[in-house]
Amino acid sequence: MVKTYIAGVLGAGRMGKIHIENILYNIPNLKLKIVADINRNDKLEKWANGIGVPKLISDASEIINDPEINVVVIASSTDTHTRFIQEAAKAKKDIFCEKPIDTDLIRIKETLEIVKEEGVKLMIGFNRRFDKNFKRVREMVSSGQVGVPQIVKVTARDPAPPSIEYVKTSGGILFDMTIHDWDMARFQVGSEIEEVYTKGAVLVDPEIGKAGDIDTVVLILKFKNGAIGMIDNSRQAVYGYDQRVEVFGSKGCAIADNEPSNTVRLYTPENIKEDNIPYFFLQRYMDSYAAELRYFIECLQENKEPSPNGEDGFQNVVIAIAAQKSYKENRPVKISEIVS
Amino acid sequence: MVKTYIAGVLGAGRMGKIHIENILYNIPNLKLKIVADINRNDKLEKWANGIGVPKLISDASEIINDPEINVVVIASSTDTHTRFIQEAAKAKKDIFCEKPIDTDLIRIKETLEIVKEEGVKLMIGFNRRFDKNFKRVREMVSSGQVGVPQIVKVTARDPAPPSIEYVKTSGGILFDMTIHDWDMARFQVGSEIEEVYTKGAVLVDPEIGKAGDIDTVVLILKFKNGAIGMIDNSRQAVYGYDQRVEVFGSKGCAIADNEPSNTVRLYTPENIKEDNIPYFFLQRYMDSYAAELRYFIECLQENKEPSPNGEDGFQNVVIAIAAQKSYKENRPVKISEIVS
Amino acid sequence: MVKTYIAGVLGAGRMGKIHIENILYNIPNLKLKIVADINRNDKLEKWANGIGVPKLISDASEIINDPEINVVVIASSTDTHTRFIQEAAKAKKDIFCEKPIDTDLIRIKETLEIVKEEGVKLMIGFNRRFDKNFKRVREMVSSGQVGVPQIVKVTARDPAPPSIEYVKTSGGILFDMTIHDWDMARFQVGSEIEEVYTKGAVLVDPEIGKAGDIDTVVLILKFKNGAIGMIDNSRQAVYGYDQRVEVFGSKGCAIADNEPSNTVRLYTPENIKEDNIPYFFLQRYMDSYAAELRYFIECLQENKEPSPNGEDGFQNVVIAIAAQKSYKENRPVKISEIVS
Amino acid sequence: MVKTYIAGVLGAGRMGKIHIENILYNIPNLKLKIVADINRNDKLEKWANGIGVPKLISDASEIINDPEINVVVIASSTDTHTRFIQEAAKAKKDIFCEKPIDTDLIRIKETLEIVKEEGVKLMIGFNRRFDKNFKRVREMVSSGQVGVPQIVKVTARDPAPPSIEYVKTSGGILFDMTIHDWDMARFQVGSEIEEVYTKGAVLVDPEIGKAGDIDTVVLILKFKNGAIGMIDNSRQAVYGYDQRVEVFGSKGCAIADNEPSNTVRLYTPENIKEDNIPYFFLQRYMDSYAAELRYFIECLQENKEPSPNGEDGFQNVVIAIAAQKSYKENRPVKISEIVS
Repeated sequence: MVKTYIAGVLGAGRMGKIHIENILYNIPNLKLKIVADINRNDKLEKWANGIGVPKLISDASEIINDPEINVVVIASSTDTHTRFIQEAAKAKKDIFCEKPIDTDLIRIKETLEIVKEEGVKLMIGFNRRFDKNFKRVREMVSSGQVGVPQIVKVTARDPAPPSIEYVKTSGGILFDMTIHDWDMARFQVGSEIEEVYTKGAVLVDPEIGKAGDIDTVVLILKFKNGAIGMIDNSRQAVYGYDQRVEVFGSKGCAIADNEPSNTVRLYTPENIKEDNIPYFFLQRYMDSYAAELRYFIECLQENKEPSPNGEDGFQNVVIAIAAQKSYKENRPVKISEIVS
Repeated sequence: MVKTYIAGVLGAGRMGKIHIENILYNIPNLKLKIVADINRNDKLEKWANGIGVPKLISDASEIINDPEINVVVIASSTDTHTRFIQEAAKAKKDIFCEKPIDTDLIRIKETLEIVKEEGVKLMIGFNRRFDKNFKRVREMVSSGQVGVPQIVKVTARDPAPPSIEYVKTSGGILFDMTIHDWDMARFQVGSEIEEVYTKGAVLVDPEIGKAGDIDTVVLILKFKNGAIGMIDNSRQAVYGYDQRVEVFGSKGCAIADNEPSNTVRLYTPENIKEDNIPYFFLQRYMDSYAAELRYFIECLQENKEPSPNGEDGFQNVVIAIAAQKSYKENRPVKISEIVS
Repeated sequence: MVKTYIAGVLGAGRMGKIHIENILYNIPNLKLKIVADINRNDKLEKWANGIGVPKLISDASEIINDPEINVVVIASSTDTHTRFIQEAAKAKKDIFCEKPIDTDLIRIKETLEIVKEEGVKLMIGFNRRFDKNFKRVREMVSSGQVGVPQIVKVTARDPAPPSIEYVKTSGGILFDMTIHDWDMARFQVGSEIEEVYTKGAVLVDPEIGKAGDIDTVVLILKFKNGAIGMIDNSRQAVYGYDQRVEVFGSKGCAIADNEPSNTVRLYTPENIKEDNIPYFFLQRYMDSYAAELRYFIECLQENKEPSPNGEDGFQNVVIAIAAQKSYKENRPVKISEIVS
Repeated sequence: MVKTYIAGVLGAGRMGKIHIENILYNIPNLKLKIVADINRNDKLEKWANGIGVPKLISDASEIINDPEINVVVIASSTDTHTRFIQEAAKAKKDIFCEKPIDTDLIRIKETLEIVKEEGVKLMIGFNRRFDKNFKRVREMVSSGQVGVPQIVKVTARDPAPPSIEYVKTSGGILFDMTIHDWDMARFQVGSEIEEVYTKGAVLVDPEIGKAGDIDTVVLILKFKNGAIGMIDNSRQAVYGYDQRVEVFGSKGCAIADNEPSNTVRLYTPENIKEDNIPYFFLQRYMDSYAAELRYFIECLQENKEPSPNGEDGFQNVVIAIAAQKSYKENRPVKISEIVS
């Protein structure tokens, strides 16, 4: 008999709404009981009613204290993540938390300790691992079809830059964007990064530079198992949301190209035209958000350690710090310089 | 203010279940009130409860007589379609009916008369028109990017033949399979067919031949506007569900290839490998079922004539009869030989 | 020790020039000795000198009578083919002749009889069999990877119509264009055609209709082994020279798409662009002309029957006559109605 | 009136033979007079006779001193390049020289000075600029369709490592292989490199490491105009000769994928198969060797500065030295550290 789980969701912003919709419609064996959002207002209330949220509150503690709720999904602002993880863990609930866990390594470490002590499961929302294309690449790697990975390449370019406001508070491109890409590289290679070199530039919008950040960045990663990683990011690919992965190894090479919007090609006297790739990240990754939650429930049902887990969340922040240092000092930085 | 419609669904078989799920989850402004299925049983009851069907009954008349219900979705067996359309029309309900309306032209004509008299809307479920790829081809044609259509080609091959039982009762490949393809050709060209030539063979399974049908069939269509159509069908494409459309015209050519399962290419010492195209029709066309119902609701809200409508349903059966005659007599058959 | 052959070429028009260049530069073991062209003039003389033709004459008999010449390449006008084949055969020379052999079946038969009696080899220039893509499809079919062929499809569309003058004298689209396509279908399927149905229209240029021909044509072929063929032709594909082949069988499907002009894709805010496919037949098929001659020399060296041979040349004209009859009478025509 | 040039070729090794064949068959207005090779022997003599070389000698000075010869093609061993360039320049002949000019920067500088003084033209054989795909990318960049280049990516992987003997004498992967790739990056971006970071590893064959070289290498380039370059190389891509270029800019992205061997896709019950990309560099780049020589002749006829010229040859060696230093010291190296 398959066990059913009862979920409480903390935070109903953009990511929270995605998880709420998925729990309501796309995740068998996960029932939504309560959503808590500190900014509960009429508009949110209306959205929640329309979509079928059973109960909307503003106080997170009701979820933490509800004995029937055994799964907590955290999609609140980053600065609340560790507090909620700790509280939920102490209440013996399994936890799905959006990335990043936090930007402070010590706070993350403490939190992971508590999760461990309480014996609950924790999964972090690096959803791209569940994109069908990138997952398929990983299957080819882990089944040995690619051989020993030697070079892994990740391209990730946003269609348009975020607001300067966002850039100022997100921690910068390395913390809010590239973090997905070395997570992807780690996922594909199956080994940890030991050194990173970052080269960045302001090529898209000088305002981003004035805000202290860069908008174009490339990295070289060195993995413990010898593999080399390459990442390239831009805040602005005018043709759409460009997301590609390539793993080159001793037996072959697996390349995941962009998802096409459709399969139509129009042959004309001028040229051959195809519609652009999807412009918005939700078009590309919507399925992956449901897939990651389904996998989390599967981990609970089969008592498996989730992946990506808290340790992945920790490592990805460590690398962000190293990458930032590398950019600032224009030299390769060893991970051991950040954590020993 | 956008109007909301209340739906009753007749029939909860394979197609009925798809529509029920879509109404529950994917069609804004259409609320499900009752599902009626003559074969209501424990298993169906359980499925209905699990998915959130408000009420499951066995008697269709309760839906027809419910004054609150203003949309009837007919997904019962083909022999009940015209009766239910007539009853629902007389009860002033708008109707979405699965294809084919019927196999008897006179019964279809009578039914369409009643629909007209009662002034209700009727849409027929030729869902492939709502496939994003084929719809995109049609947009290119209707916007003039392809110029005057000259040749339209439709390839449709099933991954595996149906049961011999099904072949015996479906009316044969031309009635159960190819009917989608000349509907597609009509949709793309925007003109009516005036002559059809059918060539068929039994190349997949001799049992299909013994059952009086063919399993491989190609057709040439002549349209009133001068365009020529080509269709090829097989009951068995061992590599998956092969669905392609091409429109060649005076200004260009739009080609919709198969949907890929993913975008990954694996380069190996032997060759380059891609995963097969989807095997099952639901993988390929699931989105189109929701899209057609959404479009139906849009037609009701904006008081537009639905498309494909009853006349399309009628024409497609006329062509099936002509195509069958052509196959049997091995000669091109004019549509005017069937209906004048 | 590999034998070297000495060639004389009859005719230095468009096709003759291609063969002459290939013999000079691309065909090992075939040396050019003499070219004869009835229209020898200053311009041709200059071209011949520039490219390195050892001897240019106007009288074909010098080639026929030269004992050193053992290979005759016939690229003169169609009405001279059978005469030259017969003369060359009687002079015991092996013969490569451009298609078609002739348009008169009796004259072809007589000529093939003489070739047989004299024991010389004869290959006919259906060069597309040597296109690397279509040849690769054939390898997949003949090696069994496609299984039993069930449906073969050939698309061939010219970028622009020929002159009305040409249309009037060529025998029409079926004789000058489609003849390549049923040769391709026969090549791929490895069986003979037993019935053909032709549907044609004038959709490109009314002048073509006034000249008694059609400019858009589709055919259904029935093969002796049960396979079905489909061909579609147009005199005008405004986007380039469209040449595709597909063989669908019991174990799979091999599809040869158009040759791209290059592999570059340009992603822009509007769409994704690729350069058009090649516009001119020489861009597409140049390599195949050298390949067919090399294969002919290989047949001589290894004493193999060439393919396509005289019988292929004969069959292709028989089918043209049947296809023409089918178009005129709008009914499927059996090959046995043309030759028994 | 188009001028015709008379060529002498120095060196008839692998690259020399390619140029000789091209001059004989594929370069209008360039006539071959003499080939000189220090290793003239029976085998070479036979090859030269067979292909039509007018005169084969062993002493280069006869070419230098022949007043009729006005173009010298240098394809001898690298250590002879500067001597031959200087001698040919002093004899007032225009010069095409294989890459690299030399490995010693001072010797290159001196040689370029003499070329300048003598007023002759010098082109260096970075043939990949003439590959139709990469050239097309450059056209898109220079015509502004890509906007301001921001990220340029070059992938180049050999199908199999060279002999250890070769590795020991070539100067290593950066000098013999990657040199093509930063030339490509410079060509595409249209700006000079100011800093390079190299990360390398021995992942293919430990013997290469023992010989003091690496077999897997990735680089980040910083251009003066702000653009960033990425290169990845491997000595062994088991699936073929992998050659790709991508230029991402403010208005779009141009991507040149690998040349396919053919356009056939085989759909089977297991997967979809394509033939591998070409395995050997000659299959991929043959046309580019003829194209570069044709362009050289065009430069002579129109009195244009050739491109890539001597300065490109110099810059590419400077970058190799910087890249090597970067690898050894594991830090980004400025070009100004090498030459000021």
